Amino acid sequence: MRNSSSDRTTVKRIPKRGHYDRETIDAILDEAIICHVGFVVDGQPYVIPTGFARVDDLIYIHGSAASRMLRELSKGVDVCVTVTLLDGLVLARSAFHHSMNYRSVVILGKAELVTVQTEKMAALEALTDHFVPDRWKDVRPPTELEMKATSVLRLPLTEASAKIRSGPPVDDEADYALDVWAGVIPISLKHGEPIQDI
Amino acid sequence: MRNSSSDRTTVKRIPKRGHYDRETIDAILDEAIICHVGFVVDGQPYVIPTGFARVDDLIYIHGSAASRMLRELSKGVDVCVTVTLLDGLVLARSAFHHSMNYRSVVILGKAELVTVQTEKMAALEALTDHFVPDRWKDVRPPTELEMKATSVLRLPLTEASAKIRSGPPVDDEADYALDVWAGVIPISLKHGEPIQDI
Repeated sequence: MRNSSSDRTTVKRIPKRGHYDRETIDAILDEAIICHVGFVVDGQPYVIPTGFARVDDLIYIHGSAASRMLRELSKGVDVCVTVTLLDGLVLARSAFHHSMNYRSVVILGKAELVTVQTEKMAALEALTDHFVPDRWKDVRPPTELEMKATSVLRLPLTEASAKIRSGPPVDDEADYALDVWAGVIPISLKHGEPIQDI
Repeated sequence: MRNSSSDRTTVKRIPKRGHYDRETIDAILDEAIICHVGFVVDGQPYVIPTGFARVDDLIYIHGSAASRMLRELSKGVDVCVTVTLLDGLVLARSAFHHSMNYRSVVILGKAELVTVQTEKMAALEALTDHFVPDRWKDVRPPTELEMKATSVLRLPLTEASAKIRSGPPVDDEADYALDVWAGVIPISLKHGEPIQDI
């Protein structure tokens, strides 16, 4: 099993929630629609939501070549990409033990600008198909001008970890006697009825 | 109308998506369950998902006093808290014009450790009730020991902006003639049937 752990991505608080195998990491990345990208400008961290796609041992993000985030990341700065799937609200009998069920991935590294046109086009295909499966084959592909207006960045999955909490609340022994509703409210993303643009 | 704009939080790409009034910002913060907190350690940005709650002109986050994130943020470092609500997948006729409908808020500032016990307890109440409305009155409140084991941080909403995209795809004029399904697939968070812990 491929493994992406490093000291910086090792889960220290509640270590049993940490997972470092690529099968676990990839499943979370492939299910999520957006990621949050963290980068630093003049000492100030910024966290920006954006789409992404995984291809083998990389993730790709993309955006306008004019966007500050893409321009900053293209410089090869340190980046953190975090992907979070919220699975449930965990209601305990005490306020203290309330929690959430979730699956998250944190990836650290330096993003690189994709300059080879075949890789760039393949990345855009992956981004489009991650968005809606098999969408790429149905749509008008990018023109040369659109390709120039788009930056694609790649980030390797060499330093990544997953963190997962699942299951019921864990209360203090004495609290189980309290007359308080406890349990899990499942949460999931719901895709609604498509609204056609006419 | 209170206004939270600053040069650093002004939306530069597609400025019409930027919103700076607190009514818009607060509505997004109050609807979201989690935020992503960005902070920097040794030049490396980290982005960590966590719960939060807004009270008037502040947001609160909390966690174990032993967590690295809480310890780092308690030092008064620069932080970015981002909240994202994904509202839909926007399918255009060209790959290039695919987009998402979303409402997001970016807050910049320095978090402060809450040390006054009454404010700390009120923040924990707000965090619990943001999680599930009116939950606090039903559960066992924190003991002195649990309060000591919990850190609560406050971040003012003085430097914040919202970014919103809504509505149908916007295609190039010529592409409307293409025989490609285009429109919006709405996305929302679904609360499932509660699972009682017995």
